[in-house]
Amino acid sequence: MDSTGPSDPTGPATGNANHWVLTFSCADKPGIVHAVSGAIVAARGNITESQQFASTDTGRFFMRLQVESAADRAEFERALAPVVERFGMTHNVDNVGRPLRTLVLASTAAHCLNDLLFRQRAGQLPVTIPLVLSNHGALRDLAGFYGVPFESRPVTDPESKAAFEARILEAVEEHDIELVVLARYMQILSPGLCEKLAGRAINIHHSFLPGFKGANPYRQAHARGVKLIGATAHFVTSDLDEGPIIEQNVVRVDHTRSVPELVAIGQDEESRTLTQAVKWFAEDRVLLDGARTIIFR
Amino acid sequence: MDSTGPSDPTGPATGNANHWVLTFSCADKPGIVHAVSGAIVAARGNITESQQFASTDTGRFFMRLQVESAADRAEFERALAPVVERFGMTHNVDNVGRPLRTLVLASTAAHCLNDLLFRQRAGQLPVTIPLVLSNHGALRDLAGFYGVPFESRPVTDPESKAAFEARILEAVEEHDIELVVLARYMQILSPGLCEKLAGRAINIHHSFLPGFKGANPYRQAHARGVKLIGATAHFVTSDLDEGPIIEQNVVRVDHTRSVPELVAIGQDEESRTLTQAVKWFAEDRVLLDGARTIIFR
Amino acid sequence: MDSTGPSDPTGPATGNANHWVLTFSCADKPGIVHAVSGAIVAARGNITESQQFASTDTGRFFMRLQVESAADRAEFERALAPVVERFGMTHNVDNVGRPLRTLVLASTAAHCLNDLLFRQRAGQLPVTIPLVLSNHGALRDLAGFYGVPFESRPVTDPESKAAFEARILEAVEEHDIELVVLARYMQILSPGLCEKLAGRAINIHHSFLPGFKGANPYRQAHARGVKLIGATAHFVTSDLDEGPIIEQNVVRVDHTRSVPELVAIGQDEESRTLTQAVKWFAEDRVLLDGARTIIFR
Amino acid sequence: MDSTGPSDPTGPATGNANHWVLTFSCADKPGIVHAVSGAIVAARGNITESQQFASTDTGRFFMRLQVESAADRAEFERALAPVVERFGMTHNVDNVGRPLRTLVLASTAAHCLNDLLFRQRAGQLPVTIPLVLSNHGALRDLAGFYGVPFESRPVTDPESKAAFEARILEAVEEHDIELVVLARYMQILSPGLCEKLAGRAINIHHSFLPGFKGANPYRQAHARGVKLIGATAHFVTSDLDEGPIIEQNVVRVDHTRSVPELVAIGQDEESRTLTQAVKWFAEDRVLLDGARTIIFR
Repeated sequence: MDSTGPSDPTGPATGNANHWVLTFSCADKPGIVHAVSGAIVAARGNITESQQFASTDTGRFFMRLQVESAADRAEFERALAPVVERFGMTHNVDNVGRPLRTLVLASTAAHCLNDLLFRQRAGQLPVTIPLVLSNHGALRDLAGFYGVPFESRPVTDPESKAAFEARILEAVEEHDIELVVLARYMQILSPGLCEKLAGRAINIHHSFLPGFKGANPYRQAHARGVKLIGATAHFVTSDLDEGPIIEQNVVRVDHTRSVPELVAIGQDEESRTLTQAVKWFAEDRVLLDGARTIIFR
Repeated sequence: MDSTGPSDPTGPATGNANHWVLTFSCADKPGIVHAVSGAIVAARGNITESQQFASTDTGRFFMRLQVESAADRAEFERALAPVVERFGMTHNVDNVGRPLRTLVLASTAAHCLNDLLFRQRAGQLPVTIPLVLSNHGALRDLAGFYGVPFESRPVTDPESKAAFEARILEAVEEHDIELVVLARYMQILSPGLCEKLAGRAINIHHSFLPGFKGANPYRQAHARGVKLIGATAHFVTSDLDEGPIIEQNVVRVDHTRSVPELVAIGQDEESRTLTQAVKWFAEDRVLLDGARTIIFR
Repeated sequence: MDSTGPSDPTGPATGNANHWVLTFSCADKPGIVHAVSGAIVAARGNITESQQFASTDTGRFFMRLQVESAADRAEFERALAPVVERFGMTHNVDNVGRPLRTLVLASTAAHCLNDLLFRQRAGQLPVTIPLVLSNHGALRDLAGFYGVPFESRPVTDPESKAAFEARILEAVEEHDIELVVLARYMQILSPGLCEKLAGRAINIHHSFLPGFKGANPYRQAHARGVKLIGATAHFVTSDLDEGPIIEQNVVRVDHTRSVPELVAIGQDEESRTLTQAVKWFAEDRVLLDGARTIIFR
Repeated sequence: MDSTGPSDPTGPATGNANHWVLTFSCADKPGIVHAVSGAIVAARGNITESQQFASTDTGRFFMRLQVESAADRAEFERALAPVVERFGMTHNVDNVGRPLRTLVLASTAAHCLNDLLFRQRAGQLPVTIPLVLSNHGALRDLAGFYGVPFESRPVTDPESKAAFEARILEAVEEHDIELVVLARYMQILSPGLCEKLAGRAINIHHSFLPGFKGANPYRQAHARGVKLIGATAHFVTSDLDEGPIIEQNVVRVDHTRSVPELVAIGQDEESRTLTQAVKWFAEDRVLLDGARTIIFR
C-alpha cells in the first residue's frame, strides 16, 4: 500500500508479488485516468507512483504509473486491454527496477564510460551492459576492470565505417539491446542507422551559451569569454545534435580557465548529464511528445 | 480538454466554465485514484494537472488535481462527497488562480516586502494583500507605492507586544486572512499566536552549512569561512525556526566577502525563497505530512 | 592597513584619506607588478585588493588594485606616471565606491528597471541614475516612486528612431553619462550609436541551450523541450547580441512549463544577471581583452 | 611571459626552466607586494598568476604567486630570503604541478576513492598515492585496478585502533606523506593523531540545512523534509567535523526521495567536494587564517 519511491522497487512486504511500471500516451480526452485506475483496481493493484501530462502542443496525454499487484503480467495486461483499445493508447508494461539491456559505444575518452560502469556496479543505474563497442582500443582495460566485454575495430574509411555500423546492428540483435548509449563516441552515425535506432539511442553533447558551430567549440567559447559551459543529453536523430533533449547541465567558468581546463570541466558535466539521462530512460521516465521529451522525474 | 499549466489558469476555450483545484489526504489504500477520478467524471470534469504521493512515514496518501468542469462548486462538491466520506479524506476545493488573502508582517528590512509586492503587481504571485503590519514605520512608502494599506505600531515591551499580536488576530479576522507572511518580521511570535496560525503562517530564515546558533550568524559564518549561505522558508511553529520546511536555496561565497556583503547576498536568497514558498502555498501546492511538507510543484 | 572588501569601501580608520581603484592593461612583460607596487609605495599607499591576469590570447596583462593612500588624486597620478609611460599602459584611477553616472533605456517590461532602482536605493549598486529614457510611458510611475526623472518619446519610424537616438546622445552629454544600460529596451541601436557607446553600454539578452534564432525564442525553446533557460549580459556592439559577455545565469525548467511561465522565469534571470553586470562594471571590475571580458570579481 | 593557468603548468616555451608556486603569509603592512615582486625581478622571474588577501579578522596578509624563472630553487630562495626575513613571513616554494604525496584512508564506501583514483589517472588531480589504508578489505580490487598499493587491517577495539593509527603515522613517515585524505574513513581519529596531522588531513562530511546531530542524519533530513543536501570538505581537527571548511556543495531534493536515494545523492556531492578540496590543496591554493580557509581558486 505504501509507495517506496523509484530507488527502492521492492518496498515493504505487501503480499503483492509484482511491481509494474506502466507508461502510455493517447489523444487527450476526459475519463482516461478513471478508466486506467479502474483497470488497476480490477488487477488488484495499488498505485505507488503516478505522473501525468497533457500536451497543449500535440493534444496528447501522457502517463506513467507504478503499480504493486498480485497479478502477473498476463493478468495485468488483460485488465488493461479494454482501456488501451478504447483510447487508442500506445502503452508499455515493465517490471520496476529491471535492468535495461544497454550497448555502449565509445572512442578514447574515458569519463562517460567510467561513470556509467561505476554507477552500474554501485547499484545506482538499472542497466546491464553486455558489450562496449569502440573504434579504438584505449578503453579496453577500463571495461575489463568492470568485467564488461569490450570489442574494438578501427573506423578509417567509408568501408570500415559501414562494417562498424553493421556490427552495431548485429550486437543490438544478438543481445536484444533496448538502449544504445553514445558515450563520447566520436563518429557520426549514418542517417540509416539513426533511423533504425530512433527513440532508443542517446548521445551526449557539450553545450554553450551561446551555441558555437564548427570545430573546437571549447576554443571558440574561450575566445568569446563565456561564463557558463555545459552538456546536453539528447536522442540521436539524423539531424546532428538536434534530437529531443533529455537533460542539460551547466557550470560556471571564468576568464582564467585555459582551453584544457574548460575541456576537463565540460567532461564532468558530460558524465553526469549522460548518466542521468540513461537512468531516467532505464526507469521508463522519458516519453516523446513530438520533438519534446516528457521527463517524469 | 487541454491542460495549460498553472500559469495560464483560463486555458483554451473548452466550454468548461470552471477550473478547480482539489487537494486531499487520507490513509493510503487501494482504489483512491479510481474513486476520485470517478467523481470527477460524474462532475463532467477533465483533469488538467495531477500529482500524488504516498508517504511511507505516516501511511497517508496525498493528491492535488486541477479539473476543468462545467459543474459549479455545489455540484462539484456533491460529486466528491461520497468519496470524501468513504476514505475519510481531509480535502479542499478552490478556484485555480484565485488570489489568496495574505497579511504581511514586516519590520525595517525592505527586500522581502519589495519582492512580494513587485511580483504581486506583475501578476506572478496570486495573492491579494489587504494590509502590511509593522512594528516600525520604515516601509510605509514602499507599501504606499504599491497602493497597499500599511499600519505600524511599536513593539517595545510585553504589553505593546501583546497589543501587536492582538492586532494581528483582529486583522486576520477582519480581512478573512488565509496566509500570514513574516517578511523579515523581527519579533518572535508567542506560542499562543503560533498555535492559532498553525499551517497558515510562513517565515523566512537565513541558513548556513553548518547551522549557527545564537546572535549574528553572519558574523559566525564569516569567522568559520563558510562557502555557502542561504535561506529557508518554513511554517511558523512555537519551536523557533524549526517548522516544516517549504523551500531552501543557497549561494556560493568565498573568503573575500565581508560581513555586510554576506548579509546582502543572504537577503537576495531570502527574498526569492520566501516569494517562492508563498507562491506554492497560494497555489495549494504545499501539503503537510507530519513534520514534512509535500510540495506539488 | 586592512582590506575590508568592496562593500565596505571606507574600511577601518587608517589615517588614509583616500581609497583608490586603479585598473590598467599593457603588453605583458616581466617587472610590471614590481614597478606598479613601487609607485604605490611612493604614493604612501597600501594595497587592499589586487587581481591580475595575463592573457595568452592577446599577450596583454591586466590588473586591478584598490589602494588606501593619504595621497590625493594628483599625487597618486604623479607617482604612477613614469610606470604608465614605461609600459605603455592604458590605465584608469577612480574612487572606490563612487557612484557611476548611468543612463537607463527601457521599454515596457518593468523587471530589470525595478531591480536596478531597488538595489540602487538599497545601497547595493553604486550607480546614480539621472534619467530613464523610454520609447513608452509604461514605467513612468515606477521611476517616479524612486524619484528618478523619466522621459518617454515614441519610436515608430526611422525618423522618430533617429530622434530618440539623438536624445540618447544628448542625455549622455548633458549628464556626463559613464554607462548606458539597456534594461529590456526593445529597439535595436543603430551601428553608429553602438560605435559611439562602445565599451560603455550593457544589454541583457535571454539565453538558451541550444541558442534559437528568430522570433519568439521562448516558444521555440518550449517546442524543443529545453531543460535550462537563462540570460546573458553583454556589451552592446553592432553585431546584435554578440558583444563580449559579462555575466550569464541559467535556471532549470521542465516540460510542464507553459510559454508564459518560461517568460516569467527568464525575466528573473534577466534582472539578476543585468544588475550583477552593472555592479561589476560600476566597480571597475570589467576589463576588455579583445572579444573577451576579464571579470575581477 | 604568458600565464597559461593552473592546468597547463608548462606553458609555452619561454626559456624559463622552472615554474614556481610561492605562498606566504605575514602581518599586513604597506610594501609587501613591492618587496616580493622585487625579489622576483631579482630572480629573473615573471609572475604568471597572483592572488592576495588581507584578513581583517587576524590582520594577516596572504599571497600566492606563480613565477616562471630561469632561477633554480636555491637561487629563487636566495632572492626571497631578505624579504621573508624582513616581514617575518611563513612561506613555501614548490614546483607548479608537482604531484603531492597523498595517503588515502578508506573504509567500505567506494565513491570517494573511485573519484580520486579516476581523476588522478586522468591527469586532473596532481597527487601521487603510494598507499590506500583501510579498516576493511572491500576496496582492495578498486585500488588494484588503478595500480595503487592497498593495505587493510581491522579496527575493532582500542588496541587495534591504536595499531591502525600507529600504522598511519608509520606510512606518513615511510612515504614522506604531505596530505592524508579521509575518503569516507569511518573511524574517528584520536586527538593525538589529529594534532600530528593538523593542517595536512582533509575529511569529507555530509551537510544539511539545518544541520542534524546524532545518528543517521539522512533519516533525520528525510523526516524533516529538507530540500537541499550536501557535503563539506574540511581540515581534520580534534573538534569532530568542525575543522576549517575548504569546500561545500549542495543539491536539491524533494519529498519523493527515500532515505537510500538521499544517501546516493549525498555521495555524489561528497565525491566531487572532496576531490575539489584535494585538488586545491595539492595546488597550494588553501591557506589557513585562524579558523578560516583562504582559497586562492
